[in-house]
Amino acid sequence: MSESPSPTTSSRLMAEFLGTFVLVFGGCGSAIFAAQVLDGDTINMGIGFLGVALAFGLTVLVMVYAVGHISGGHFNPAVTLGAALAKRVEWKAVPAYMITQVVAASVAGLALFAIASGKDGFSAVESGFASNGYAERSPDGYSLLSALIAEIVLTAIFLFVILGSTDHRAPVGFAGIAIGLSLTLIHLISIPITNTSVNPARSLGVAWFAGPEALSQVWLFILAPLIGAAIAGVSYSKLFSARMSAPLV
Amino acid sequence: MSESPSPTTSSRLMAEFLGTFVLVFGGCGSAIFAAQVLDGDTINMGIGFLGVALAFGLTVLVMVYAVGHISGGHFNPAVTLGAALAKRVEWKAVPAYMITQVVAASVAGLALFAIASGKDGFSAVESGFASNGYAERSPDGYSLLSALIAEIVLTAIFLFVILGSTDHRAPVGFAGIAIGLSLTLIHLISIPITNTSVNPARSLGVAWFAGPEALSQVWLFILAPLIGAAIAGVSYSKLFSARMSAPLV
Amino acid sequence: MSESPSPTTSSRLMAEFLGTFVLVFGGCGSAIFAAQVLDGDTINMGIGFLGVALAFGLTVLVMVYAVGHISGGHFNPAVTLGAALAKRVEWKAVPAYMITQVVAASVAGLALFAIASGKDGFSAVESGFASNGYAERSPDGYSLLSALIAEIVLTAIFLFVILGSTDHRAPVGFAGIAIGLSLTLIHLISIPITNTSVNPARSLGVAWFAGPEALSQVWLFILAPLIGAAIAGVSYSKLFSARMSAPLV
Amino acid sequence: MSESPSPTTSSRLMAEFLGTFVLVFGGCGSAIFAAQVLDGDTINMGIGFLGVALAFGLTVLVMVYAVGHISGGHFNPAVTLGAALAKRVEWKAVPAYMITQVVAASVAGLALFAIASGKDGFSAVESGFASNGYAERSPDGYSLLSALIAEIVLTAIFLFVILGSTDHRAPVGFAGIAIGLSLTLIHLISIPITNTSVNPARSLGVAWFAGPEALSQVWLFILAPLIGAAIAGVSYSKLFSARMSAPLV
Repeated sequence: MSESPSPTTSSRLMAEFLGTFVLVFGGCGSAIFAAQVLDGDTINMGIGFLGVALAFGLTVLVMVYAVGHISGGHFNPAVTLGAALAKRVEWKAVPAYMITQVVAASVAGLALFAIASGKDGFSAVESGFASNGYAERSPDGYSLLSALIAEIVLTAIFLFVILGSTDHRAPVGFAGIAIGLSLTLIHLISIPITNTSVNPARSLGVAWFAGPEALSQVWLFILAPLIGAAIAGVSYSKLFSARMSAPLV
Repeated sequence: MSESPSPTTSSRLMAEFLGTFVLVFGGCGSAIFAAQVLDGDTINMGIGFLGVALAFGLTVLVMVYAVGHISGGHFNPAVTLGAALAKRVEWKAVPAYMITQVVAASVAGLALFAIASGKDGFSAVESGFASNGYAERSPDGYSLLSALIAEIVLTAIFLFVILGSTDHRAPVGFAGIAIGLSLTLIHLISIPITNTSVNPARSLGVAWFAGPEALSQVWLFILAPLIGAAIAGVSYSKLFSARMSAPLV
Repeated sequence: MSESPSPTTSSRLMAEFLGTFVLVFGGCGSAIFAAQVLDGDTINMGIGFLGVALAFGLTVLVMVYAVGHISGGHFNPAVTLGAALAKRVEWKAVPAYMITQVVAASVAGLALFAIASGKDGFSAVESGFASNGYAERSPDGYSLLSALIAEIVLTAIFLFVILGSTDHRAPVGFAGIAIGLSLTLIHLISIPITNTSVNPARSLGVAWFAGPEALSQVWLFILAPLIGAAIAGVSYSKLFSARMSAPLV
Repeated sequence: MSESPSPTTSSRLMAEFLGTFVLVFGGCGSAIFAAQVLDGDTINMGIGFLGVALAFGLTVLVMVYAVGHISGGHFNPAVTLGAALAKRVEWKAVPAYMITQVVAASVAGLALFAIASGKDGFSAVESGFASNGYAERSPDGYSLLSALIAEIVLTAIFLFVILGSTDHRAPVGFAGIAIGLSLTLIHLISIPITNTSVNPARSLGVAWFAGPEALSQVWLFILAPLIGAAIAGVSYSKLFSARMSAPLV
């Protein structure tokens, strides 16, 4: 990409806007519209947690290839924090990236609300509207502590995959596949625990519509992903840099 | 590809024919034959909406690698429109591409009808024959307005992925994966809303066989994808071109 | 690969043996062991037709990357026929390839039989043992004619993807993904119709164990794939070769 | 990668630690938390065996891209053994790799135990905690002999895919996709037989928590994968090396 001029600031922020919009519209949208579509009492034609996990991963996979070459393809304030700590993005870009991500996620939440409202009997609060939660709001009844551990560990894994697969030693071009599918993997593990955040923008974008109880828990889904991302961002280069050439053992 | 002579017109149209045939035969075929195959009253051995979403995406993924190097791999009049507006294909090629796509989709619809008729009790009208619909014909009861918003937004996303992943700044060779899987993502979100079109040829190809009510709604699935594709086609280069080299913020 | 010496004949046949073994052991094995694993009367923890479709495609995807650089990665007599007709493999290699494929498929069938026999109450004939069938042996009751059309059309599509994605104009390295996932797509469409063959070796490899009724129908799953592959093999270069450089329309 | 200095020993072991941690945390975690999440008596919103198979494969796929360029990406003592026998890794690195993998798997087991304990009524012993088993502990009732054959054959296939897709003749960069998805394929076949090991570290990492009966069977899941890997490691170069350039037949 050295032959191309650098993307402009507005291009980069527009890329983050579009990517984060697709992440929330696609990931949360698949959960809201398609996770459960019953045929009679016993057959679910919908996509279940497996389909939602696939959808979240695909949002990132496809948008990294679509606009990652413009903005870096973060779509997530935790990723932006981790990337800044690992010196992969300039600190001065961080605030605009994060604000753009939260705005885009919220616009996506609004678009989902508009579409969902076209179905009789829809209630964002009652349905949960793909919001994250713990304890009594955990999909399968996991405690606050379980949620905290899961979100920290999984966001750290996410950042290690991002930083590792975009390392100059990794094969070129495959990072989008690895990063996107790592988000699918993360959802395959943790939808029952917290409905899976690892992304404060994704959590905020739908929490506005999901009622006061959802909003009262959203702090965990801002804090834990940022902690997990910071752990990976600070430690990646310490753990994995090829500082010296030494034989094994 | 600069060392190869350009594909002939007939090769290009044959590639569009084959790709669009596979899209409808495979995507709609999986829905018609395999979405629901009951074992007793309570077990669905079939592939559900998740399998249908995967099938649609794979049709495009595999055909982009198979014949995308010949025709560009549109297989969809909305994609052809968006690509022309973004100056990725010559306007004079547009009519022949669109006609070929609609003919191929209709031939695929006919082939599906022939196979499906070999099962006792099959009725294209009663089964819906994978046609698109809104309001009373929406799979999960979404309104005309919901359908319109969903189809416009999702087709715009589809075109942004197509234009972005084939941008000269994107990694070479991965566009087929990104484009195909974005169609899977789109279906994971919206099968319950409209049975998912984002492709006027796909909608027309099966609507002929699905009865007058299906045909009476097909206008939306021609109009909305074209609008969504036009929005993305016009705005892509404005939003994302590297017109000037400037630092962020 | 021009710097490497050509693989020996025995390496090529061993690669076809291993690849075809994996195709039948993995594809048919997933169907026999894992398609339906009930928990109580109403919950299927098993992988269903979707998982079987994925398994078949992954066998080819992974073995093309594992040994495709040695033998070309056919694993299927129909593919070998189509490739020979398209001048992609020497005719003199065809008999040994086909014999090896059928032997490997049968050895895989035997290995599956040995494992399956370790479960109480197993009967290859009663379970069907992943054999192909039509009419009364079609999984969802499709006629002989439906089966014939489906197998011919789908094998032709399979060969078009193989020949197109390995065309010198296609992006390098991605053919294994396209070819493998096209086999997944083919299964997503047609497991309910014929249990999906498109591969005479796969059909024969399990038919030996599935009883006389399965064997009496196996002719269709030898004949139809060969016809479909021949259609694509003969027509690919006529339809898609860049014989002349001409502008569109 | 020749321009980069070699990774240090500690980087390589840290990469193996992280990759093996993710394999067990993600693969076993998806089984423990998400395989079955009932909504009422008849609807499983969880990911089933298909989702677990996908999760296991994705752990390896993403970690090969994340840290495979540092350690080779084994994450499995059987892979390390097979790679050493095939002269792909130095023998002197083997003990530290294997010890690191078992420690990482056990730490992952502990993290899963901590999270799972945050759900009321959880019992690692009663739930099985994603441990492997045969006979009365086989998920679908397969015998010790069936388990032994399946684990040996599948681990051999896994190693053939690893050695073949990283062969210098194979397309560059795609090995992570092939290797990861081969692990998904392996799980699609054999979760009902043994809950799928092919990895002694994965088996040990959760067996500590699953009770004495699980521990009493873990020998098979150490022995059989090592045998299968050794068979492939010894035979790969004999079967597939291009020792001489000879025409076919």
